[in-house]
Amino acid sequence: MATNKILIAQGGGPTAVINQSLVGAVLAARGFRGIDLVYGARHGVRGIVNEDFVDLTQETSHNLERVAATPASALGSTRDKPDVKYCQEIFKVLQAHGIGQFFYIGGNDSSDTVRIVSEEAAKAGYPLRCMHIPKTIDNDLVGNDHTPGFPSAARFVVQAFAGANLDNAALPGVYVGVVMGRHAGFLTAASALARKHPDDGPHLVYVPERTFSLDSFLADVKATHERLGRCIVAVSEGIHDASGEPIATQLAKSVERDAHGNVQLSGTGALADQLCDQIKEKLKIKRVRGDTFGYLQRSFLGCVSDVDQHEAREAGEKAVQFAMWGERDGSVAIKRCGDYAVRYELIALDAVAGKTRVMEDELIAASGSDVTDAFRRYLQPLLGTGMPEAARLQAPAVAKVLGPR
Amino acid sequence: MATNKILIAQGGGPTAVINQSLVGAVLAARGFRGIDLVYGARHGVRGIVNEDFVDLTQETSHNLERVAATPASALGSTRDKPDVKYCQEIFKVLQAHGIGQFFYIGGNDSSDTVRIVSEEAAKAGYPLRCMHIPKTIDNDLVGNDHTPGFPSAARFVVQAFAGANLDNAALPGVYVGVVMGRHAGFLTAASALARKHPDDGPHLVYVPERTFSLDSFLADVKATHERLGRCIVAVSEGIHDASGEPIATQLAKSVERDAHGNVQLSGTGALADQLCDQIKEKLKIKRVRGDTFGYLQRSFLGCVSDVDQHEAREAGEKAVQFAMWGERDGSVAIKRCGDYAVRYELIALDAVAGKTRVMEDELIAASGSDVTDAFRRYLQPLLGTGMPEAARLQAPAVAKVLGPR
Repeated sequence: MATNKILIAQGGGPTAVINQSLVGAVLAARGFRGIDLVYGARHGVRGIVNEDFVDLTQETSHNLERVAATPASALGSTRDKPDVKYCQEIFKVLQAHGIGQFFYIGGNDSSDTVRIVSEEAAKAGYPLRCMHIPKTIDNDLVGNDHTPGFPSAARFVVQAFAGANLDNAALPGVYVGVVMGRHAGFLTAASALARKHPDDGPHLVYVPERTFSLDSFLADVKATHERLGRCIVAVSEGIHDASGEPIATQLAKSVERDAHGNVQLSGTGALADQLCDQIKEKLKIKRVRGDTFGYLQRSFLGCVSDVDQHEAREAGEKAVQFAMWGERDGSVAIKRCGDYAVRYELIALDAVAGKTRVMEDELIAASGSDVTDAFRRYLQPLLGTGMPEAARLQAPAVAKVLGPR
Repeated sequence: MATNKILIAQGGGPTAVINQSLVGAVLAARGFRGIDLVYGARHGVRGIVNEDFVDLTQETSHNLERVAATPASALGSTRDKPDVKYCQEIFKVLQAHGIGQFFYIGGNDSSDTVRIVSEEAAKAGYPLRCMHIPKTIDNDLVGNDHTPGFPSAARFVVQAFAGANLDNAALPGVYVGVVMGRHAGFLTAASALARKHPDDGPHLVYVPERTFSLDSFLADVKATHERLGRCIVAVSEGIHDASGEPIATQLAKSVERDAHGNVQLSGTGALADQLCDQIKEKLKIKRVRGDTFGYLQRSFLGCVSDVDQHEAREAGEKAVQFAMWGERDGSVAIKRCGDYAVRYELIALDAVAGKTRVMEDELIAASGSDVTDAFRRYLQPLLGTGMPEAARLQAPAVAKVLGPR
């Protein structure tokens, strides 16, 4: 049984429901007789090493509920990716404050941090329960059917493409929408659920799990445009050639790299613009427009899946239950056990840490430019209730009086 | 009294509520004893000259209601801007089909088309009632308190900046969001209503009604970033220097121009990227991200102001009432007559046609980089009910144990 003080933090990119997990854990912890204090670290692991803590025991339940319904990370986040030395610093601070349980809400980098901290505590013989709570719009955590945050971002992508499809049907042309996801194409693939009628877009969907060929892409756009007089394309920011080089890099003159040497793919409209330029130049199509969904897809206030909200809440709550009643550290994983129902399992930290899930082959169409029915069945229940629907006129044509002139 | 056949069309950029106006007019017309047939032209004036009509009398009321709730132009739209010769063609087709009333839903270009067609009918002595129904997310029609379509687009911009503000507070840096509006800054200015707490973004708002200076912009961003450790900027796509040259053109190497010689400002992420590059280079700030809201802000399925929906519906309905019971052609205008209430007036076509409203001086702060309280009071009631709200944690800080190391 752990000591009576717990610490919670949030890492990585914010999502629409990461605060649900925070509040799920805080409220569950406050309900346990053995817990006296619930601390939150500001800006993830950075806040831990800086001892930048707030006392969440002093939040009202009402305000916690309002925060739960607010997107982004209410405690603040960080892009720091701790190495062993950094994790030793984290452990020192946890020890100094007498923390008995450590909860970190984040993606696969965050689960790796939890893993190292857990090992440091074991080495030091300090009784620390370490729990990872899953979160990522990329849906790229192994061992999970899906991850909290992804369904809401997917819903945004569906609503965006459904709207873009209507706009493009009204004013025909080519439209390219670039979606987040460096290695995993789940979020880009979600765009396919925007379709209702056979001629609805997106007509082409390109994910990073398949090699992107500019020539095939242009041929696909040309064929669709000739067939329908318009074409909507969903493209992952992470599309790359056979050698793995991002298309964004190839088409750009200058690129920005982060501390890890990764090319900056988000927060720039370059890829959409480059692909549009190629379509205008090579296919001589005049009306070509590109949008990069950017930060809107993960932060937009008021676009959320209720299924995602409830699961994120439960994931936080289950993490505390596993910590209080269980005997081991781990990562909370969502398993699908019905159509549609889920259960939560505690899986080993090293089963998740630092690993990246990508789209399974059966989810991607053989053409490489669409998804399968299996993907549609997979995603549909996650999008939640109250999904807005598009309708079109059904009126018959009127006979011409003047005829061709 | 007009003949028993009416024609409706939609022009210009689609909006979230333009189908409300269409359905408002169709249902009102179908309820009048004197109307036998209600035709819709596909793709605006282009569909008229091509006799591309559908018979809206054969739509079910249920489907019309579903279409009303769907964004974009259900009949299709066009960017054609008819000259006198084109309008004579339009008139010939209306005459050939025995159309007694012509309704065109659109912006100031569309109202100019209605004006010319009205004049052609008068010259020919043909009894044609011509009505313009207002629509534009730019809110740039003179004679109107505001225009249908603008409130819903403004709501999208508010929700987008409210979310971007939360995301940026979690992972601090500079964020630049580029908003539509070539000449009128209303939609960009709407971003200011995303703020709740004094340190909330957007911290800077640049509209095309004021000359944009890159040096002042950089100084403003620097000052905000030093004060808050972060900075969110809302920028109109139409910002320009003292000579009127768009900033997008100045910073770009190559630009696209449309048939009218206008530089393409929408459908490209260039301006956001260029401003971000300037901030990185000149201010040496590392985390700088830009988003161009692009087509999402006018087409996103499921982001709409209910006030806007109701007014757009009424504008369509009033147009038919004015046509049936009135004796003159005109443009339906929304007038504010209470806090908050509106009434609809029929104003002369040449009072609206081809004219552009921009933000009044009292709506723009003296600094030139913010709006005034007058603007906030103006916009607030238009955003509609059920606006999602953001909340933040209120928890007190925990005393450090280790202290500075």
